[in-house]
Amino acid sequence: MTKAPAPVIVLVRPQLGENIGTVARAMLNFGLTELRLVAPRDGWPNPAAGPAASGADVVLANARVFDTLADAVADCTDVYATTVRKRGVTKPVLTPEAAATQVHATSGRSAYVFGPERSGLDSDDVALAHNIVTVPINPAFGSLNLAQAVILIAYEWSKGEALASPPEVPLDPPAPHRELEDLIDHLVRDLDAAGYFFPPERTTATLRTLRTALTKTGWSHNDIRMMHGIVTTLGKARKSTRGGDN
Amino acid sequence: MTKAPAPVIVLVRPQLGENIGTVARAMLNFGLTELRLVAPRDGWPNPAAGPAASGADVVLANARVFDTLADAVADCTDVYATTVRKRGVTKPVLTPEAAATQVHATSGRSAYVFGPERSGLDSDDVALAHNIVTVPINPAFGSLNLAQAVILIAYEWSKGEALASPPEVPLDPPAPHRELEDLIDHLVRDLDAAGYFFPPERTTATLRTLRTALTKTGWSHNDIRMMHGIVTTLGKARKSTRGGDN
Repeated sequence: MTKAPAPVIVLVRPQLGENIGTVARAMLNFGLTELRLVAPRDGWPNPAAGPAASGADVVLANARVFDTLADAVADCTDVYATTVRKRGVTKPVLTPEAAATQVHATSGRSAYVFGPERSGLDSDDVALAHNIVTVPINPAFGSLNLAQAVILIAYEWSKGEALASPPEVPLDPPAPHRELEDLIDHLVRDLDAAGYFFPPERTTATLRTLRTALTKTGWSHNDIRMMHGIVTTLGKARKSTRGGDN
Repeated sequence: MTKAPAPVIVLVRPQLGENIGTVARAMLNFGLTELRLVAPRDGWPNPAAGPAASGADVVLANARVFDTLADAVADCTDVYATTVRKRGVTKPVLTPEAAATQVHATSGRSAYVFGPERSGLDSDDVALAHNIVTVPINPAFGSLNLAQAVILIAYEWSKGEALASPPEVPLDPPAPHRELEDLIDHLVRDLDAAGYFFPPERTTATLRTLRTALTKTGWSHNDIRMMHGIVTTLGKARKSTRGGDN
């Protein structure tokens, strides 16, 4: 199966050029580049869009303008209408996550459609879509702006893409167990000399607790080396002041 | 098992009041209400925050201000530093999704920490965290603003709220962060007295390494209490044999 093409983002009757710019920026963060505008209120191009795009100029430069939503999604096999909630529309309502899974599973081109800033998509726009996508938000406070809605959708889509793999930071792996044992020996030796294990009959239990705590640290070779230094430093200071004690 | 409390959002040295407002709005959309500010540049309250919050006033009204990040997360058991990428910091790097899973799995309070708008978190801030959270973005265009980073983190967290997660009782949960800080203070005090920090110009780097090692231990309240006892025992032995040294 061929890889599904990246979805297009369609803004229906967007009002502010600035919002078109912030949408472009939101898209490009997650690797979406194809923006389509249906009857933008203030025409296109819009001088307010560029500065708001913060460098996502390639998205704006390639944006295409259409008269109707039907025209804008004419080449798309799957159309997702993003809404808060739509009364009386009987279509599947998906989370952004479920929608992204479908977008990746299809071989055709998908479109995510967003309505005007204030009113959202009207019923005719929604009727044209195959599915509804709704971001589950706080029922007591739903206040996503246009770019935020786009970024959540784009973010979910990007998870299915190879490019979005998390950065690989080589972690310092935990040290081999023997190194931990050596540290415990070192520590116990010095603690014993300092009279830590008292009363003697509790020594076994105390040692077990100490071992448990040190075992869960996940310390690396370098961490353990540092801890040897710490124990040695405290121990040395003690011994040197004790003089001929041992 | 008791449900994990909702995480707190910590903004370190935020610059613009407007951005604090948009963060509050982003949070409330996904049910997060606890905002903490570390040394906000323009003081607090900030008149620019309210209008930008678009009605999320309850979040701003309850926001608390702290002098340091350590103070802000003193009651938190898990601290997540959000960064783009951090060189030379050896901590687990999680996606927002993986972090949210952890936040839901712990019984303590978690904190998501965000840096200043321009520079992001500095190395000392990151050193204090237990994990790093990085939103996987387009390597050729990474341009998330503060509120967008917050909304993605909050959105991922909110997903786990709907789910009835299987109860898992952690045997001995990690201690609140303040306890770890107290232990570090105690250890550093005694190490300093023993001449551990030499040469002096390397002290900052050494302290950071030490903090990183102790931060990843996952030590519980009881573990930390035991460690205090260990440090005290070694320190006391040293002092008592030194006689009139101090």
